[in-house]
Amino acid sequence: MAKKLARKKSSAKSGSRKTTAGRSTAKAAAARRRAARKTAAGKPAGSKPAARKVSARRPAARRAGARKTGRGGRKYVYFFGRGKADGDRTMKDLLGGKGANLAEMSRAGLPVPAGFTISTEACTVYYKEGRTIPPAIDREMVENLRKLEAAAGATLGDPSNPLLVSVRSGAKFSMPGMMDTILNLGMNDQTVEGMKARTNNGRFAYDSYRRFIQMFGAVVLEIPKEAFEHEFERIKEERGAHLDTDLGEKALKEVVARFKEVARERSGRDFPQDPLEQLRGARDAVFRSWNNARAIEYRRIYEIPDAIGTAVNVQMMVFGNTGERSATGVGFTRNPATGANEFYGEFLVNAQGEDVVAGIRTPQPIVELGKVLPEAYEQLREITSRLEKTYRDIQDFEFTIQDEQLYMLQTRNGKRTGYAAVVIATDLVEEKLITPKEAVLQVDPESISQLLAPGFEPKAWKALPVATKGLPASPGAASGQAVFTADDAVEWTRQGKQVILVRKETVPDDFHGMFVAQGILTATGGMTSHAAVVGRQMGKPSIVGAGSLEISERSRSFSVGGQTIKEGEYVSFDGLTGEVKIGQVPSRPSEILQVISGEMQPEDSDIYQRFHRLLSWADGFRRLGIRANADQPDQAETAYAFGARGIGLCRTEHMFFGEGRIPIVQRMILADNEADRRRALDELLPMQREDFYGVFKAMHGEPVTIRTIDPPLHEFLPKREDLMVDIARLEAQGKKSKELDEKHTLLRRVEQLHEFNPMLGHRGVRLGITYPEITEMQTRAIMEAACQLAREGTHVIPEIMIPLVGHVKELRDQKAVVDRVAAEVIKEQGVAVTYLVGTMIEVPRGAITADEIAQEAEFFSFGTNDLTQLTFGFSRDDIGKFLGAYQDRKILDKDPFATIDTVGVGQLVRIGVQKGRSTRPKLKVGICGEHGGDPSSVHFFEQVGLDYVSASPYRIPVARLAAAQAALQVKVGD
Amino acid sequence: MAKKLARKKSSAKSGSRKTTAGRSTAKAAAARRRAARKTAAGKPAGSKPAARKVSARRPAARRAGARKTGRGGRKYVYFFGRGKADGDRTMKDLLGGKGANLAEMSRAGLPVPAGFTISTEACTVYYKEGRTIPPAIDREMVENLRKLEAAAGATLGDPSNPLLVSVRSGAKFSMPGMMDTILNLGMNDQTVEGMKARTNNGRFAYDSYRRFIQMFGAVVLEIPKEAFEHEFERIKEERGAHLDTDLGEKALKEVVARFKEVARERSGRDFPQDPLEQLRGARDAVFRSWNNARAIEYRRIYEIPDAIGTAVNVQMMVFGNTGERSATGVGFTRNPATGANEFYGEFLVNAQGEDVVAGIRTPQPIVELGKVLPEAYEQLREITSRLEKTYRDIQDFEFTIQDEQLYMLQTRNGKRTGYAAVVIATDLVEEKLITPKEAVLQVDPESISQLLAPGFEPKAWKALPVATKGLPASPGAASGQAVFTADDAVEWTRQGKQVILVRKETVPDDFHGMFVAQGILTATGGMTSHAAVVGRQMGKPSIVGAGSLEISERSRSFSVGGQTIKEGEYVSFDGLTGEVKIGQVPSRPSEILQVISGEMQPEDSDIYQRFHRLLSWADGFRRLGIRANADQPDQAETAYAFGARGIGLCRTEHMFFGEGRIPIVQRMILADNEADRRRALDELLPMQREDFYGVFKAMHGEPVTIRTIDPPLHEFLPKREDLMVDIARLEAQGKKSKELDEKHTLLRRVEQLHEFNPMLGHRGVRLGITYPEITEMQTRAIMEAACQLAREGTHVIPEIMIPLVGHVKELRDQKAVVDRVAAEVIKEQGVAVTYLVGTMIEVPRGAITADEIAQEAEFFSFGTNDLTQLTFGFSRDDIGKFLGAYQDRKILDKDPFATIDTVGVGQLVRIGVQKGRSTRPKLKVGICGEHGGDPSSVHFFEQVGLDYVSASPYRIPVARLAAAQAALQVKVGD
Repeated sequence: MAKKLARKKSSAKSGSRKTTAGRSTAKAAAARRRAARKTAAGKPAGSKPAARKVSARRPAARRAGARKTGRGGRKYVYFFGRGKADGDRTMKDLLGGKGANLAEMSRAGLPVPAGFTISTEACTVYYKEGRTIPPAIDREMVENLRKLEAAAGATLGDPSNPLLVSVRSGAKFSMPGMMDTILNLGMNDQTVEGMKARTNNGRFAYDSYRRFIQMFGAVVLEIPKEAFEHEFERIKEERGAHLDTDLGEKALKEVVARFKEVARERSGRDFPQDPLEQLRGARDAVFRSWNNARAIEYRRIYEIPDAIGTAVNVQMMVFGNTGERSATGVGFTRNPATGANEFYGEFLVNAQGEDVVAGIRTPQPIVELGKVLPEAYEQLREITSRLEKTYRDIQDFEFTIQDEQLYMLQTRNGKRTGYAAVVIATDLVEEKLITPKEAVLQVDPESISQLLAPGFEPKAWKALPVATKGLPASPGAASGQAVFTADDAVEWTRQGKQVILVRKETVPDDFHGMFVAQGILTATGGMTSHAAVVGRQMGKPSIVGAGSLEISERSRSFSVGGQTIKEGEYVSFDGLTGEVKIGQVPSRPSEILQVISGEMQPEDSDIYQRFHRLLSWADGFRRLGIRANADQPDQAETAYAFGARGIGLCRTEHMFFGEGRIPIVQRMILADNEADRRRALDELLPMQREDFYGVFKAMHGEPVTIRTIDPPLHEFLPKREDLMVDIARLEAQGKKSKELDEKHTLLRRVEQLHEFNPMLGHRGVRLGITYPEITEMQTRAIMEAACQLAREGTHVIPEIMIPLVGHVKELRDQKAVVDRVAAEVIKEQGVAVTYLVGTMIEVPRGAITADEIAQEAEFFSFGTNDLTQLTFGFSRDDIGKFLGAYQDRKILDKDPFATIDTVGVGQLVRIGVQKGRSTRPKLKVGICGEHGGDPSSVHFFEQVGLDYVSASPYRIPVARLAAAQAALQVKVGD
Repeated sequence: MAKKLARKKSSAKSGSRKTTAGRSTAKAAAARRRAARKTAAGKPAGSKPAARKVSARRPAARRAGARKTGRGGRKYVYFFGRGKADGDRTMKDLLGGKGANLAEMSRAGLPVPAGFTISTEACTVYYKEGRTIPPAIDREMVENLRKLEAAAGATLGDPSNPLLVSVRSGAKFSMPGMMDTILNLGMNDQTVEGMKARTNNGRFAYDSYRRFIQMFGAVVLEIPKEAFEHEFERIKEERGAHLDTDLGEKALKEVVARFKEVARERSGRDFPQDPLEQLRGARDAVFRSWNNARAIEYRRIYEIPDAIGTAVNVQMMVFGNTGERSATGVGFTRNPATGANEFYGEFLVNAQGEDVVAGIRTPQPIVELGKVLPEAYEQLREITSRLEKTYRDIQDFEFTIQDEQLYMLQTRNGKRTGYAAVVIATDLVEEKLITPKEAVLQVDPESISQLLAPGFEPKAWKALPVATKGLPASPGAASGQAVFTADDAVEWTRQGKQVILVRKETVPDDFHGMFVAQGILTATGGMTSHAAVVGRQMGKPSIVGAGSLEISERSRSFSVGGQTIKEGEYVSFDGLTGEVKIGQVPSRPSEILQVISGEMQPEDSDIYQRFHRLLSWADGFRRLGIRANADQPDQAETAYAFGARGIGLCRTEHMFFGEGRIPIVQRMILADNEADRRRALDELLPMQREDFYGVFKAMHGEPVTIRTIDPPLHEFLPKREDLMVDIARLEAQGKKSKELDEKHTLLRRVEQLHEFNPMLGHRGVRLGITYPEITEMQTRAIMEAACQLAREGTHVIPEIMIPLVGHVKELRDQKAVVDRVAAEVIKEQGVAVTYLVGTMIEVPRGAITADEIAQEAEFFSFGTNDLTQLTFGFSRDDIGKFLGAYQDRKILDKDPFATIDTVGVGQLVRIGVQKGRSTRPKLKVGICGEHGGDPSSVHFFEQVGLDYVSASPYRIPVARLAAAQAALQVKVGD
C-alpha cells in the first residue's frame, strides 16, 4: 500500500471542483442535508422523520432500551455478534453506515465477526472534550471488549490465545478511503509468538505484526509511511527479494525489529506493547481522522455535514491470508457498471482485504472462487442473495474466508453508474422486488444524465488499432490529451484542454484531477479499486488494471506495445469495453440520443426502453410540469423527444447571432435614428418569424414562452478595448486610412453604449422601453408565426415574456406595445390566436412587488440565474475570484448558481409566488434558470408550488425524475 | 406678451433635469404624494386626514351641504362673491389652490371680484367622458353664471352693460405659467361698443377686444400666437408706431378686424361672437391645457400627480388699464428673497395683470403706490396684513385697482428662498404668530441648503467694476460662461462647463436651461417675473430686469456699457445685491460656513443665529439621530459643527488615495504572496491609524462607524484598456523596452483582477475574506487609534462595519478576524476600548436574512445606494442610458438614487429592520446611503424606526430639519 497522505489543494482548484461534484450527487446530497438537519436538531437522534422510519421497522421499546447502558447513563458502545446486536440498520446516525450494517447482519444470523461500535456521539464528545474520551466511555468500551473476548473465545494480549481486532472508521455516509483503518491490533512481541504457535505459521504471524506496526505507526503515531516503506525496501534489497512474499519469517522478524526502531526514533518512545493502550490510541486516531484534510475535502465535495462525526468499529480480526484455504474479496450482487444481474466481484487467495481494494495485486473474478473454495462460495452466493432481498437493492459486500470459514465483513447498497441504476431499477421492478414508485425513488436523477453522454464515432474508433485492454470500470467514451498527475489534469483543463488522467493507480489524493479529466486510465487495480469506485461514482469513463501500460510519472510518458506516448498526446478509450487506443477519436451520441434523434429504433435499444419506462413511471408521480429552455427548432425537437411539454424559455437574441444576421443586427444598433433602425428591424422580421415558426412547430401546440430581447446591445458589437487597441496601433503607424476613420466612428458608438456593469445596465425590458420598435418587431414575428401555424391547424399559445421587470409600470408599458401589435397582426391575418403576456421575475424588486406586477402579468417565470446574481450581489462571471475561498472557509456550502440558495434567493421566490398569486390566484408560475435542471433545486420548486420547471434539453430526463421524487417526498407549501 | 409655446425637450435632457429638481422640493413633493394618495383613494375627498383637518375649522354640516347641488346631484360649480362663498380654503383638492383662496377671501369680506369655480372633479369627468363636459355640469355652470351676472350687475353679451370675465386654471398645487388663461371673455362686436360707451374709452375697449381675440385664438382655437403678433407688428409698421400704446382706437379697430380674419382663416370659421360659446370653449381649453406638454413636464419635475386635474375659475373682469386711476400689481407681505419684514411688490399704472408678470414693462416698487393712489394703497396694506395673520405665513397676492376701487385677485402662501424661509420662520415665532413647532414645519428642509451655498471671494469680487445692476430676484453668487439659450445651457453643462443663462426674459420653455445654469440673468421683468419666481423656487441665483443689457440671441452676445460680451465669456453676479460684473470670480463660503469654520463669530452673523435657532428647535422635536458620512478629520469637524453627533460612514479606502499612499496600495495589490502584501500593509498601518485618530478626535467621543475596505482592488490600478492601448502603441513602434515589459507585467495582474461587473465583483467583505490581512491591518489601525485617544482621555467607541454582507457566515468570518486583532491590540496597549462589529445591509440577501445576520451583527447600517442598485438591478453608473426614457414614460416618478423607492427598496429596509430586531431587539440600525440627506427619504426612515440617518456634512442641517418634520408628521411603524 503506497497511498500518500492527502494534501489540501489550493482554494481555486477546490472551488472549481466543488461545483460539479455538488451536482453529480445532488440527490444524495439532499438526503444528507435532511440527515444533517436531523442530526443538528440535537441528539439523541430521536427527531421526527428518523423516528417515524425506525418505528415502522422495530418496536419502540427495543429502540428505547438500546439507548441506555445498564447503569442508566447514556450508551456509547454497541455490541454485535453471535446472531445478536445492540443496534440495527436504522441506526446509521449513531453507528455509522458500517456499524449499523454489521449490527443488522449480525441480527440476521450472518457470519459476521463479532465486535462493537463506539458511536458517533462518542466522536462528538471526543471533540467537545478537547480531543479526549472521558473515562466513562472508555469503561464502556472495555466492558464491550470483555464481551467480545468471550464471544471470540480469545483474549486481547493473551499470548496463548490472542484476540486480534480491526479498528475502522464508519460515518453515516460512506467516505471510501478517507479515514483511517488499523488491522491486527493486539499484536505485540508476545502475542506474535502465540499467533505463530496457534497457526503454526511464523511467516504469517510476523507479516501480520509488521503490517500492524506500519499501520499503527502511520495512523496513530503519525509517522510518514515512507519511513517504514524505506526500511522494508532496504531489507528486500539486502535479501535480494523481489516480491514481498519472497521474505520469509526470519526476514519479517527483522522487518518487525526495524519497524519498532523506526517507531521509537520517530515517536520518541517504544512501540506500545499493551494491547489496550493500542486500542485506545487507534480509537482516538480514528476520531482524529474525521478531521484530516482529505476527509474534510471529501465532505465538502459531497456536502456531508462536519457535525455528524464518525463511529469506530472494533471487530475481531479474521484472516484471509492464513494460507491457500483462506481468501478475501469484495463483490456486488449485480454488475455495478452495466446493471446486469450477474454475481460480480473479485477475490485474492491468501490475502488481506486491503490488498484487493488497494489494487496492488490484480484479483481474480469472483466466479473463480467457486472452483477454489466451492463451499464458501455457495454460502456467499446464498447470503448475498438474501441480503439483496432484504435491502431490496444491489449489495456491495466484503468477505473474508479464513481456513474455509466464510465471514461477512460488510454489506451496503452498492454505488452504481447511471446506466446500471436504470437497468437495476427496472429489473428489480420486473422481479417484483420493488414497486415502480420505489424504482423512481431509487435512481439518482443526476446519474441518468450519464446515459446521454456521447460515445465514439464508430468508424473513427474502429480505424484505430487497440493499444491495450483494461478492466471496464466505468462506461463512456473518453478522448483527450494524456496527463500524468492530478495537478496537471487540473492545470491543463483550466487552459481549456481535454485530458485523460493516466496513473499507475489512483489514490484519494488524486480526486481533484479525476474530477476534471475526461477519463481515468490506470495500469493496476481491479473493478473495485479506488479509480474504479470513484470513476463510477462520478460517472466518469474509467479503465483500470490495464497492466501492459508502463507508466513513468517522472518522464511524463507511458509505453504500450513498444510505442511511447508522451504528455499531451491523445489517448482514447471506451469505458464499456475496456479498449484503449492511441489518438483522438470524435465522439457520437449515446444510444439514447440516437433513438431520440431517430437514428435508432426504440425497439432496438434495451437501455432506451428501460430509460423510457423509468421516466414514464416518474411522469405518473410528478406534479410539476416540465418545459425546456430551447432557442432553436432542433433544440425544441430534442427537448420534446426527451419529454418536455412546452418551452419555458426561448431566448430570441440567440437567433440574432445566426448566420448572416449579425450585420443586420449591427446596422440596427448603429442606426442613429428610428427610421434606419426600423429598416434594419424589417430585415430581421422574416428571419425571426421563421425561427418562431420552427420552434412552435417542434412543440406540437404545447405552450412556448418567448423572451423579448435581453442582452445589452453592445454585446452585438466589437469589444471596446479591441477597437481602442486597433486604433492605437493604426495611429502609431502614422497612417491615415479609411479603416481608421471607420474604427473611430464605431468606437464612438461603442463608447456610447459602454457600461460599467452590463449586468445592471441597459438591457431586458429597458431596451424595449427605449426602443419599442424592437418589441414591436419581435411581437410581430411571434404573432405572424403563430397565425401561420393556426392556419395550418396547429394552435399554439405564445407566451410573450418581458425580461428584467422590476416595476409593474415597465411591464405595463411593454404589454401595451405587445397588445397593440398583436391586435394589428391578428386583424391583418384574420386568424384568432390566443397569447399571454408575462414576465421574468429576476430582479429582487420584481419578487418583492410581485403583487403589483401580477396586475399585468399573466404568468411569471423565475429567472433564478439573475435573481441569484442580484440577491447575493454576485456577478456570475466574476464569482470565481472568491468562490473558492468562500467554500474553503465554509461560508457557502455550495455554488448558488448550481443549486438554489433556498434561504435567500429561495425566500424571494417564495415571496414572489405568494404575492403574485395573492393578486392573480391562477397565475402560472415557472422557473427557467439553470436551477430548473438541478434535482435538489427541483425539490425546492415543488415545495413552493411552482407550476413547472424549465431546463435545458439534455437535463429534461433529470428534471422529470427529480420532479417525481420531489412530489413523492415533499408536500407543496412545506 | 410673447411667450412661446413650450416644446417638449429630448428625453436625455429631461432626465438629467429631473433628478435634482426632485430633490430641491422634496418636502413639498412629500406633501403632494400624501395628497395624491388621498385623492387617488377616491373622491369625494372625505378621506381621513383631509376630513380631520377640515372638521377642525368648520362645522361638518356645512361641509356636507356644500357637496350637493339643490337638486341632489353631485355639485361641480362653486360660487363666490359679495362676502360669501360655497367653498373655503380647505377645499384645495376640489377647487384648486386659487379657487379655494378666492372662496376664502370672499368669505372674509375682502374685495374679491365675484365668480365661480368649476371643480377639479369636472376635469376628471371631462377626461372620462372623452374630453367633453356633460350637459348637467354645463347647466350648473350657466346657473352660476346667472348668479354672477346678478352680483356684478352686468350681463354676459349685453351690449349696453356687458359682463366680461376671466377664465383661469387653478390646480391644487401652483403651476405658474404652465396652463392657460383667457381674459376679457365676453367681448364681441357688440359688447366692445358697449364697453366703449360705458368707459368712454374706445381705445381701451378695442385694446381689450384685440387682447381677447389673441388669447382666445391661441388657447381655444390653437392658432400660433405668432400669426397674431405678425399682424400686429405689420399694423404698427404701417402706422409708424414704435410702442403698442402708440396705436389709437382706429388702429386697434383695424387690429381687431385683422385678428378676426386670422382666426377665420386658421380655424376655418368665424371668430365666435356668442359669449356663452366663448365661455364653454375657454373652459374646455383650460381642462385641455392640463395635459399640454409644458404642464406635464412641470408636474413630472415637481412630482405633482397627473390624476388630480385642474379647476377652472371664472371671475368677473376688473381692469387695471382703464386709465391713470387704475393699476395692477403683485406683492408679498414680506421680502421673499431676504425674508425682511417689509411690504414688497410692484405695480404698473394703467395695465393689466399679465403685463406685470410677463416682465415686458418694468414696474414700480409697491411703496410708490402710496403716492399714486394713497387710499387704495392703505386698504391694500390693511388687507394683506390681515391675510398674513389669518394664514400665519407670508402672503403672495395679486390686486387690481379699477378707477380707485381695489380688488384682490389672489392670495397664497408665498414661495421664498431658503434664506428668507429661515428669516421669516424665526421672525414669525418672535412675533408670536407661530410656535417653534410650526416654524420647524414651515421651512422646506431642502431649501435651507441654499444658505450654505458659496458667495464670492470678496477681494476678487470688489476688484471688478460693476457692469450693470438688476433686480436681486434670488440670492447667491453665480459665475459662469454666458450662454443665450436654454438648449445651449444644457449642452454646455453636459460638457462640464458652468454657465450663466442670459435671456431677455425667460419663459416656461426655458425651464431646463434655468435648471442647469449657475445663475439666470434677464434684461426685462420684475421681481415676480417668470425668471424671478422660478429662480427663487430653484434656489438659483437670479437677477432680472437688468435693463441696460442689450441682448442679441442671434449673434449670441450682449452689450453693456459699450462692451460686447460673446457667448462663452465669463459673467458673474450677486443675486442678493443685483450687481453684475464681467469676468470670473472665485467663490467663498457662505456666511454660515464662515461661522462653522470659525472665520466669523456666531454673534456677528444674524442669519447664522436664526439658522441655529431653527435647527435647535428642530433638534427638540426629532427622534432620529443624525450622523455624518465623513472620511477625513476636516470633514468630520465640519459635520460636527453642523450638528452631526457621530459618523455613520467613514470609508477607509478614500484614505488610500491620499498623497504618497497609492504606490504603497499598489504594491500591496501587486504582491504575489502574503508576505509581500503584509509588508505593504505594514507601511499603510501608521497612515490609517493617523487618519482614524483624527476622525475620532473630531467627533469628541461620539460613535464613529468605520467601514473596512470596499471597492475592488483594480480601482487602485491603472485602467486595463489604457494599458492595452499603451502596449499596442509601444509595440507598433517596434521598440522593445523596459517600459513595455513593465506594462505587460502590470497588464497581466490587471487582467487577473479584471471584472465584467465590478459592482457585483470581488469587493467588500469578499476582499476581507480572501485577504484577511487587510482586515487585520485596518482593525489594528482603528484599535490603536482608539487606544491612543483613550489614554488621552477621549473614550471613543469604534463601530467596525463590514460591507456587502449577504450571508451571516461572511460576517462571522470577518468578525473573528476583528475580534482577534482587537484583543491583541487591547492587550498590547493595556487600555480598555469598547468596540462594536456590525455590517452594512446593502445586498438584498442581507435584508432578507437579517435575522441570521443579526446573530453576529451588533449594528446594521443600510447602504441604500447599493441596495437600490441590486434591488432594481440598476447600475448607478449606467442608469443614465434609460432613466430619461423611464421618467418620460412615467415608469419611474423619481430617481430612486435620490429619493428612496419605498415600495421596493424600502420594503427590504423594513424587512431588514424587523428581522434584525427579531433576533436582537436592541439592534442599532441606521442608514448611510445618499438617501440619508433626502427629506422625503428621511420621512420614510422615521417611519420604519431607524435609530439614525447619516448624511454628507453639508446635508446635516437638511437632515436635522427633515428628521424633526418627520417626527412631527409620521408615527414609527406607520
